[in-house]
Amino acid sequence: MSKPAVLLLSGGLDSATLAAIAKADGYAVHALSFAYGQRHSVELTAARDIAASLKLTSHRVIDLDLRAFGGSALTADIDVPKHDSVEDLDEGIPITYVPARNTVFLSIALGLAEVLEASDIFIGVNAVDYSGYPDCRPEFIAAFEATANLATKAAVEGTAPIKLHTPLIDLSKADIIKRGTGLGVDYAKTISCYDPDETGAACGRCDSCLLRRQGFENAGLPDPTRYQ
Amino acid sequence: MSKPAVLLLSGGLDSATLAAIAKADGYAVHALSFAYGQRHSVELTAARDIAASLKLTSHRVIDLDLRAFGGSALTADIDVPKHDSVEDLDEGIPITYVPARNTVFLSIALGLAEVLEASDIFIGVNAVDYSGYPDCRPEFIAAFEATANLATKAAVEGTAPIKLHTPLIDLSKADIIKRGTGLGVDYAKTISCYDPDETGAACGRCDSCLLRRQGFENAGLPDPTRYQ
Repeated sequence: MSKPAVLLLSGGLDSATLAAIAKADGYAVHALSFAYGQRHSVELTAARDIAASLKLTSHRVIDLDLRAFGGSALTADIDVPKHDSVEDLDEGIPITYVPARNTVFLSIALGLAEVLEASDIFIGVNAVDYSGYPDCRPEFIAAFEATANLATKAAVEGTAPIKLHTPLIDLSKADIIKRGTGLGVDYAKTISCYDPDETGAACGRCDSCLLRRQGFENAGLPDPTRYQ
Repeated sequence: MSKPAVLLLSGGLDSATLAAIAKADGYAVHALSFAYGQRHSVELTAARDIAASLKLTSHRVIDLDLRAFGGSALTADIDVPKHDSVEDLDEGIPITYVPARNTVFLSIALGLAEVLEASDIFIGVNAVDYSGYPDCRPEFIAAFEATANLATKAAVEGTAPIKLHTPLIDLSKADIIKRGTGLGVDYAKTISCYDPDETGAACGRCDSCLLRRQGFENAGLPDPTRYQ
């Protein structure tokens, strides 16, 4: 029987690739997505499509309304910044950063891992094209793993320690796309845009669209994104 | 102006005492409670009463349905164990443990702290009468604090580090009750029971009721709990 793993699935390009990698590594993948009040909630439809097409073992969508405290262009009434090219991206931490999002999502993944008796958690963080998000850095991941190994029943009972898997962390967007293409990921099913229309068509000008588009260019692969 | 702090408020005896301590220490207290699918959701009414009576600066109730993965007598269809006395409590981690609950709640508190530009988070964990919960131990708290200090914008920008306050961690239940009584906490407003009836009356026989009742006895103070 395959070993169970919990995987954070957003519906974007990175986590779809991550799911394909976890499957290829032989895990029974239990995917977890969040309806957190994100303006791009159409990504949840993408997450469902990806989970079905990759035949993941299970897929849960957890309701957690982060609009209760806002603080991000993704969850509050703040415009998503638009730019003409990757060179125009702002320095520093962008307004699309959602406070403590990866900490929150990993915590809930940890709870599910405990219930499923899984000791492997996959998260598609990336330190190269990471847009300046603090909770995508390797040192954050290492610290969370250490915390997880003190937080749970398994930690007290001395059973299998929790391992965080971040196979994308050192890859460029182009490398991620090449890797996923090799594993048969259909990127037309994924949505990266922070500000898509209700049909899921991408704006083409937010940070996430620009990084994605450049990724396909650098990979020398056709970009299947449906733009507005 | 008072310094803002985020405080996890369950509606129980410990977190009510915690809130009184944070107020007495001069913080502007922003309380956070969770509707997580707990069977004892009447505790949220208690949390609202406590927040109002202590004149906390704000109180948010976040919806996060942990029944999506269950695994605990508090969130799944599993009976809450009952005993005749404190001596009968089971050894080890009880079935009322909710997987990764404190990790999840602290993560969301961290997000709110970031939005409010608060660097202080209060949690009423207790290592003495801790009922065997792994995420109430000092080593867990220290690890979470280290993670928090890598997770946020403040961590990257080098502004005030996050400090977790656990003033109850080394106190017995009797000490907590004496401390809160000195600060004017009205324990009749608090609910500790894991299995109260719909009016909030306590069962008197779950682990939490037994520890609470013994706490009042040991403190030599009248127990204002309304039992079924």
